[in-house]
Amino acid sequence: MLEELKQQVCEANLLLPKYGLVTFTWGNVSAIDREKGLVVIKPSGVPYEGMTADDMVVVDLESGKVVEGKYKPSSDTPTHLELYKAFDIGGIVHTHSRWATSFAQAGKGIIPMGTTHADYFYGEIPCTRAMTPEEIAGEYEKETGTVIIEAFYGEIPCTRKMTPEEIGGAYEKETGTVIIETFKDKSPDDIPAVLVHSHGPFTWGKDAAEAVHNAVVLEEAAFMNFHAMMMNPEIGHMQQELLDKHFLRKHGKNAYYGQN
Amino acid sequence: MLEELKQQVCEANLLLPKYGLVTFTWGNVSAIDREKGLVVIKPSGVPYEGMTADDMVVVDLESGKVVEGKYKPSSDTPTHLELYKAFDIGGIVHTHSRWATSFAQAGKGIIPMGTTHADYFYGEIPCTRAMTPEEIAGEYEKETGTVIIEAFYGEIPCTRKMTPEEIGGAYEKETGTVIIETFKDKSPDDIPAVLVHSHGPFTWGKDAAEAVHNAVVLEEAAFMNFHAMMMNPEIGHMQQELLDKHFLRKHGKNAYYGQN
Amino acid sequence: MLEELKQQVCEANLLLPKYGLVTFTWGNVSAIDREKGLVVIKPSGVPYEGMTADDMVVVDLESGKVVEGKYKPSSDTPTHLELYKAFDIGGIVHTHSRWATSFAQAGKGIIPMGTTHADYFYGEIPCTRAMTPEEIAGEYEKETGTVIIEAFYGEIPCTRKMTPEEIGGAYEKETGTVIIETFKDKSPDDIPAVLVHSHGPFTWGKDAAEAVHNAVVLEEAAFMNFHAMMMNPEIGHMQQELLDKHFLRKHGKNAYYGQN
Amino acid sequence: MLEELKQQVCEANLLLPKYGLVTFTWGNVSAIDREKGLVVIKPSGVPYEGMTADDMVVVDLESGKVVEGKYKPSSDTPTHLELYKAFDIGGIVHTHSRWATSFAQAGKGIIPMGTTHADYFYGEIPCTRAMTPEEIAGEYEKETGTVIIEAFYGEIPCTRKMTPEEIGGAYEKETGTVIIETFKDKSPDDIPAVLVHSHGPFTWGKDAAEAVHNAVVLEEAAFMNFHAMMMNPEIGHMQQELLDKHFLRKHGKNAYYGQN
Repeated sequence: MLEELKQQVCEANLLLPKYGLVTFTWGNVSAIDREKGLVVIKPSGVPYEGMTADDMVVVDLESGKVVEGKYKPSSDTPTHLELYKAFDIGGIVHTHSRWATSFAQAGKGIIPMGTTHADYFYGEIPCTRAMTPEEIAGEYEKETGTVIIEAFYGEIPCTRKMTPEEIGGAYEKETGTVIIETFKDKSPDDIPAVLVHSHGPFTWGKDAAEAVHNAVVLEEAAFMNFHAMMMNPEIGHMQQELLDKHFLRKHGKNAYYGQN
Repeated sequence: MLEELKQQVCEANLLLPKYGLVTFTWGNVSAIDREKGLVVIKPSGVPYEGMTADDMVVVDLESGKVVEGKYKPSSDTPTHLELYKAFDIGGIVHTHSRWATSFAQAGKGIIPMGTTHADYFYGEIPCTRAMTPEEIAGEYEKETGTVIIEAFYGEIPCTRKMTPEEIGGAYEKETGTVIIETFKDKSPDDIPAVLVHSHGPFTWGKDAAEAVHNAVVLEEAAFMNFHAMMMNPEIGHMQQELLDKHFLRKHGKNAYYGQN
Repeated sequence: MLEELKQQVCEANLLLPKYGLVTFTWGNVSAIDREKGLVVIKPSGVPYEGMTADDMVVVDLESGKVVEGKYKPSSDTPTHLELYKAFDIGGIVHTHSRWATSFAQAGKGIIPMGTTHADYFYGEIPCTRAMTPEEIAGEYEKETGTVIIEAFYGEIPCTRKMTPEEIGGAYEKETGTVIIETFKDKSPDDIPAVLVHSHGPFTWGKDAAEAVHNAVVLEEAAFMNFHAMMMNPEIGHMQQELLDKHFLRKHGKNAYYGQN
Repeated sequence: MLEELKQQVCEANLLLPKYGLVTFTWGNVSAIDREKGLVVIKPSGVPYEGMTADDMVVVDLESGKVVEGKYKPSSDTPTHLELYKAFDIGGIVHTHSRWATSFAQAGKGIIPMGTTHADYFYGEIPCTRAMTPEEIAGEYEKETGTVIIEAFYGEIPCTRKMTPEEIGGAYEKETGTVIIETFKDKSPDDIPAVLVHSHGPFTWGKDAAEAVHNAVVLEEAAFMNFHAMMMNPEIGHMQQELLDKHFLRKHGKNAYYGQN
């Protein structure tokens, strides 16, 4: 089933080592068939070398159960599923790519500082808050998805660490609160990437290939921002007008970059 | 038409990925036929892999209109055209190469700190001022060219950001002022590179291949200067005499580097 | 003798240049046959190119004498032997890999700052204390093993430099003291890596291949931690709960990462 | 003439791009035949790709004149000749390798901070003083050699910039003074490398291949020291005893590293 989508997802996974975004098996790409409500994703812990479309795993969006596949799906599958439920996107990538992960470990979002960023990300790439001990102890990978969604729409791109009192609260209630906090002021179309605090990046797109494309761009933006900040800590956010200009010449109805 | 020049420009474009200066399609090379008043440039958003001379686009220097080619020209074409009108150069490169772009994002010019720089760039590689909202909203790519020309000849290699009052001024008048400011104290022969504020580098040369050569050198100079500045923030500009010695042993009538 | 183990050790040695962990001959891998009490290790100063299983050297665990092999064993052999005697491990790697060695030269352990680290190392990767002049002048490579064991179990992952008075003490007595200090509060199963002060990393695992795997991970963790610390010096140790979650989803009886 | 030496020098030159030490033609290797008083060196500005032994240039040690060769010798030839006259060495390398040159641009010597350094360099790799305007205006490349020799034996590895008064002095007299200052307290056998202020590294060895080997090691040492210093600015020089141990286990009559 879904042979074409499995082929696309497999090829997108193989782009991760090609672009130097993964070490060993530290990354995974998925894509969704919205009509059937099925997600195709990389198997867990299987090396890229020699991987074929036949190795991909098909998972049900709602139940999270494996529908087809000889392997267990990526352990990050619940995070992917949460994102597909919340965002109207077609493909997702997760890696531990070096530069973006360095920002995630520093607990810092990546602010727009140049047109390379602006061509793809219409504002700061946020870093999620740290998860609470309860979230980590519970359905961890699903909670990761929840935190991303919150960080994305929330007002504080990268929060303080939680207090012991907050951590001592009721887990299920906190989860609900976090979800409710989410739908505020950012669009996953405008900023197709997020950093998970102390973890690493997730990116997405209309399909698996675009999600990988955005993962590569994120890594370039992280590299340049790191060095620009080291040289000039005061430089800050680029001009809003330049951010608008570059993002909108590539995206939306007035785009004029590329052919057609 | 211009088959030989198209071949040169195509080959020069293919050097960009070879030297690690571009990701995806983020770069373009052009060259000019001064007699015919025509510019050959890379098509917009077309990948380097499999690109042939036949894909190049021929554009009229004065009107900016496409004269020949099956694709739309690079969206940066207006910037190239402005530079050809202002400078007596034969080829231009634009990239988002990592190290040079980090300087552009920091809003810092690259001062000469060693003989690697001095062998090719006879002084600071300037960083343009930030563009005004009016310039960005108008003919953006053409304005980019204007700003480069200004930065090049102007006294302030990397300006402050513009005030709201300046931004609130009349766009066409500001454009004129910026152009008038340009022709002062620098030579594009001496310093064949510039950083566009919050954007990235442009380099040029007597032809497309030399422009690429200078793009590679720029990236090396940016790498070394970054690390030298991190280690020794007080080090500053190299000795003027050493800058003279190295630049002039490679350029001008008394050059003695290389064969002939 | 030990033809299969020699083959494994040879292949693991050849992974070091493949993963960019060594320059010239600066690295070595060994593995142990516990039943026979024999260790197979790379020969000293022999290049990786063209190396075969037949070039490996077999050394007796207790006496340190060569049992088979046409070459002298790695000059680091005594360190490997000390580690095999103290830890229940099957393979060891030593390199001068760039990022991990930078931490060793800074005399800093690598604290856990993200899940990349947590997936493999259950806490700080310690940096040994500096060795005393007496230890250096004596059986240096064997003392290196002793210092690693001490750093591993000791309370101070990276000690101050020794005082002249301490250095002036009796070498053999100090060696005994260092060994006695060792078995306290860390497990080589939980943290299969160490940095030797002013020197470089040692990693280990259940066999030679896993030891190499851990050497690659160590290098990634060092890269990311360096940049996260440069961006955010205050960030510190990741949440203990997240460290627990990630390490334990890959290790121990409740692991659920990967197939099976 | 000197066919074997030309072959060795050609092969050593080709190692420079293989090890990532050069961009374009920015590097050169030479070797000397002491009996004949002849030096074989790379031609000036000729690319490495397709270079053969036949392209090498033979130069007379004393007169600096070309004895054989279809090309002009490297413009750095006078520096090589000065070093051969002063040091008992067989091969010399000059590059603008990225990390070592970053130190040269920062005007900083590379102090020993770990055993990677200690295995090859028995102390600080010095950075020369800046040259005076008179030296730069005169026989520049020959003066570069003089400055290296001075820096090597002199007491101040990396001097202050010269005062206007010193610069205003008599050029030939200054040259003599600089040479006289040289033979004091360092050995080119112990530290086969130097950084020329605002320029880049020179390394040497018993032959061309060893000189290249040392150029690679220098680059690794520079990389690690940069990052160790950024993390821990207070760390300073490694223990002298450890420096002794590592250098002397590889060099001199008591060496026991490697085969034989």
